[in-house]
Amino acid sequence: MPTLYYAPHTCSLASHIALEDAGARYELRRIDFGKTEQQSPAYLQINPKARVPALVTPRGVLTETPAMLVFIAQTFPEAGLAPLNDPFAFAEIQSFNSYLCSTLHVAHAHRMRGYRWADEAASFADMQRKVPRSVGACYDMIETHMLRGPWAMGDTYTIADPYLFTLAQWLEDDGVDPARIPRVIEHRSRMADRPNVKKAVAEELAA
Amino acid sequence: MPTLYYAPHTCSLASHIALEDAGARYELRRIDFGKTEQQSPAYLQINPKARVPALVTPRGVLTETPAMLVFIAQTFPEAGLAPLNDPFAFAEIQSFNSYLCSTLHVAHAHRMRGYRWADEAASFADMQRKVPRSVGACYDMIETHMLRGPWAMGDTYTIADPYLFTLAQWLEDDGVDPARIPRVIEHRSRMADRPNVKKAVAEELAA
Repeated sequence: MPTLYYAPHTCSLASHIALEDAGARYELRRIDFGKTEQQSPAYLQINPKARVPALVTPRGVLTETPAMLVFIAQTFPEAGLAPLNDPFAFAEIQSFNSYLCSTLHVAHAHRMRGYRWADEAASFADMQRKVPRSVGACYDMIETHMLRGPWAMGDTYTIADPYLFTLAQWLEDDGVDPARIPRVIEHRSRMADRPNVKKAVAEELAA
Repeated sequence: MPTLYYAPHTCSLASHIALEDAGARYELRRIDFGKTEQQSPAYLQINPKARVPALVTPRGVLTETPAMLVFIAQTFPEAGLAPLNDPFAFAEIQSFNSYLCSTLHVAHAHRMRGYRWADEAASFADMQRKVPRSVGACYDMIETHMLRGPWAMGDTYTIADPYLFTLAQWLEDDGVDPARIPRVIEHRSRMADRPNVKKAVAEELAA
């Protein structure tokens, strides 16, 4: 049985929802960022990147949300979370999730984690001022060119949906006006109504 | 037959090499960054993100290197570029490539493209000063925890190899001391000796 290492308000929620969607049996282990547990020697043995999520499986540890989502979809094919026998449609999902990971999430990270890429307080402030525009531009791209509706990839729910939903939790705090991206907001609301999503969110927010 | 839109000295080289490795028939179309062709109306019709690479296929357009590499591996299974029937091993490759995309490439981008995340010249200078450390930390992670050798994933060449090779072209310009990461440098040299790599590099550098 795999164990998902997670922290509330991080992108680990995406894999958590996908495990629920897959009907998987799994264990949850919370990493306490308040105590910088992600940098503890014990956790660095699991994930030397000192981040969440990590999925510990009998074969080894997986990290990076797009990879974990693919693993869940392929390990539970009966859940139908990705078109496993259609390389083009499968790659479209990977493209969607790769954009979320490397462009949207990265833009967001400049609000709170500018120290990854700079040292000066003035640079952090400059980055923070730009977040509404840089993250906003990502959501414009998603709204206009990527989100097909009603689900991310169109008529069928896939592993792109929990990932978009997870990152979309943060858009108001990033200063993005939800009125500008009605289709993203509608998607977020539709996701929030799903029992699996309610369960995963409740589990993460419980102490 | 697919068409790869590329530009020299960008991550499009990874997909170019993989197409060669797959034995694919494809066409190449260079996008002239000197003329900001990536922002031309014609190219924005292909890729509204205004970036390379893009792979135009009979089914539609794919963007994002990790997705394109998966598509190439799955479309040409006989080339053996990924363990397609082993979800865990397949996910490990996705994890490797996702890290390259969202952490290493992003750290590198702060040297020349700080305007994506900030506005002030002083911030760009601060970011540039940090690149040797931020990119260097990524290579330390790859050297110590990710690169198995002789290939990225171990004994078998996969789609992780052309991607690592492509990004490793830039490490000296990013101020990373190659002496600190001998296994990454050995991998880069081994890749550079492959005929498919020589062919792809030569095609991209030709006018």
